[in-house]
Amino acid sequence: MSVLALAGGVGGAKLAEGLAAILPPGELTVAVNTGDDFEHLGLRISPDIDTVLYTLSGLNNQAQGWGLEGETWNFMAALERLGGETWFRLGDRDMATHIERTRRLKSETLSEITADFARRLGITHTIIPVSDDPAPTMVATDEGLLAFQDYFVRLQCRPRVERLEFPRIADARMSPGLAAALSAPDLDLIVICPSNPFLSILPILSLPGMREALTNRRAPAIAVSPIIGGKAVKGPAAKIMTELGMDVSPVGVAEFYGALIDGFVIDDADSGLADAIEGPKFLVTNTLMLNAEDRRGLARDVVTFAREFALK
Amino acid sequence: MSVLALAGGVGGAKLAEGLAAILPPGELTVAVNTGDDFEHLGLRISPDIDTVLYTLSGLNNQAQGWGLEGETWNFMAALERLGGETWFRLGDRDMATHIERTRRLKSETLSEITADFARRLGITHTIIPVSDDPAPTMVATDEGLLAFQDYFVRLQCRPRVERLEFPRIADARMSPGLAAALSAPDLDLIVICPSNPFLSILPILSLPGMREALTNRRAPAIAVSPIIGGKAVKGPAAKIMTELGMDVSPVGVAEFYGALIDGFVIDDADSGLADAIEGPKFLVTNTLMLNAEDRRGLARDVVTFAREFALK
Repeated sequence: MSVLALAGGVGGAKLAEGLAAILPPGELTVAVNTGDDFEHLGLRISPDIDTVLYTLSGLNNQAQGWGLEGETWNFMAALERLGGETWFRLGDRDMATHIERTRRLKSETLSEITADFARRLGITHTIIPVSDDPAPTMVATDEGLLAFQDYFVRLQCRPRVERLEFPRIADARMSPGLAAALSAPDLDLIVICPSNPFLSILPILSLPGMREALTNRRAPAIAVSPIIGGKAVKGPAAKIMTELGMDVSPVGVAEFYGALIDGFVIDDADSGLADAIEGPKFLVTNTLMLNAEDRRGLARDVVTFAREFALK
Repeated sequence: MSVLALAGGVGGAKLAEGLAAILPPGELTVAVNTGDDFEHLGLRISPDIDTVLYTLSGLNNQAQGWGLEGETWNFMAALERLGGETWFRLGDRDMATHIERTRRLKSETLSEITADFARRLGITHTIIPVSDDPAPTMVATDEGLLAFQDYFVRLQCRPRVERLEFPRIADARMSPGLAAALSAPDLDLIVICPSNPFLSILPILSLPGMREALTNRRAPAIAVSPIIGGKAVKGPAAKIMTELGMDVSPVGVAEFYGALIDGFVIDDADSGLADAIEGPKFLVTNTLMLNAEDRRGLARDVVTFAREFALK
């Protein structure tokens, strides 16, 4: 089958890893959020793409979710001694990704570079950015309008979020791979991974033509809730939902996606909420991905669930 | 006293370290060759400046002369896996110097950045580039005109040198620090370190105004031979002298500097050649700097030798 997964960072990468493990080579396309991308120390950094690359290649740090296993930090220590900026931690091995991406971006697209990195890291599925055009997410907060990484890393999500802004999104186009996947006649399934709906998925949905493409989908779209038992598995999703006046529950997430999804997957811990979800069909299963078997299990459940939806 | 040392990489840095150790803080200015500087992987790299910075701060790898002690190479290994260029080896800690220099060069001069790096690394003397203007050395060889690092690192000095070219030197100015040091009324001594005369010192001598400034010097100028017993202590100096049809001996080096120096320091191993050196006074001593005591010893000998020259 042919599956398109929309993903952000850690949570999205986990389900993408599960899907990659159960699908034959080449059947999965992971389209990754680029709203977090930024320039730092003169380098073009794509945190979500890197998390997906490192996770699907098995090189990732399992404990923290992002970064590389066995990473060293000698660059960072030396940079600190020279008085450089150290609030965004860049590991020695991770630096190679940023240096090489930055160098190649002078003559290649982010899509081309990402595809080549994936191939070189032994990944047999397709990983693409949702866009080759920079469209950085800005976070409007009670401490002012902040660049994403200022909010997310430097200020550790402490400011109160008022809204997300995408000032350059009107000029951003879907990457060729994302546009092709969405319009492919043989697309069987669209998965919205359990990433932060606001920080990771909303930037994707805000790309010109994206909501229309999803609304006119011929393949079923299934989202997996990143909220379990009233909490986000990782990151500030629950805090942001509260700040935006939403119910911190899968119900709030399902409402956020609305008519863009056909199916919605929630955790066993939230089975009591199933009746409150209006619109999409729902599936209750284990969505907490603590290990590789959990990730494959959830991927299998999502793929099986998809069979309940007749092609439109 | 006030001493100006002209230096290239490893050999120059060793004598500079000796001078730094015996002179009170602030009395030494090391003006470093920038002809080797190049851009690689999007980074501005100044190999000779870094060798001098690392050596005078005691952070250098004593065994190999360049680079940092205890350096790790995880960046390089990861870059190789991504298909990046690995012929120029950049260590994890060393990367911080290149990243931070490259970033700061957008708004500061190489002189300002080098001075700040030296301060942060605890160096109490002045280290400056000979110029803030890029003027890369080109090596005309039997394999064509090569960028310096292509010749020096990638091709490991194998091509036969026909001549050195400095295509951008006419537009390069001495750095403010070098110009100020040369014209300072209280300058007591100019030292040409035992660096490669062609690859390290000739680019400095080729800067507009440099030969004139040295010719009109009021302080004595003393050069230390990088050739000992018919061989270069390190690097391709002897090979290049042969290729250029010169006598591989201190005599050839002394002739190369000609009237630009008042004194010339040769090694005990070459004491028999002293009579053949025309022009400058010469001093025979131990010039092979195998350890810190050797470096201090040679520095003391040079400073003592300088007292033989009356101010002009």
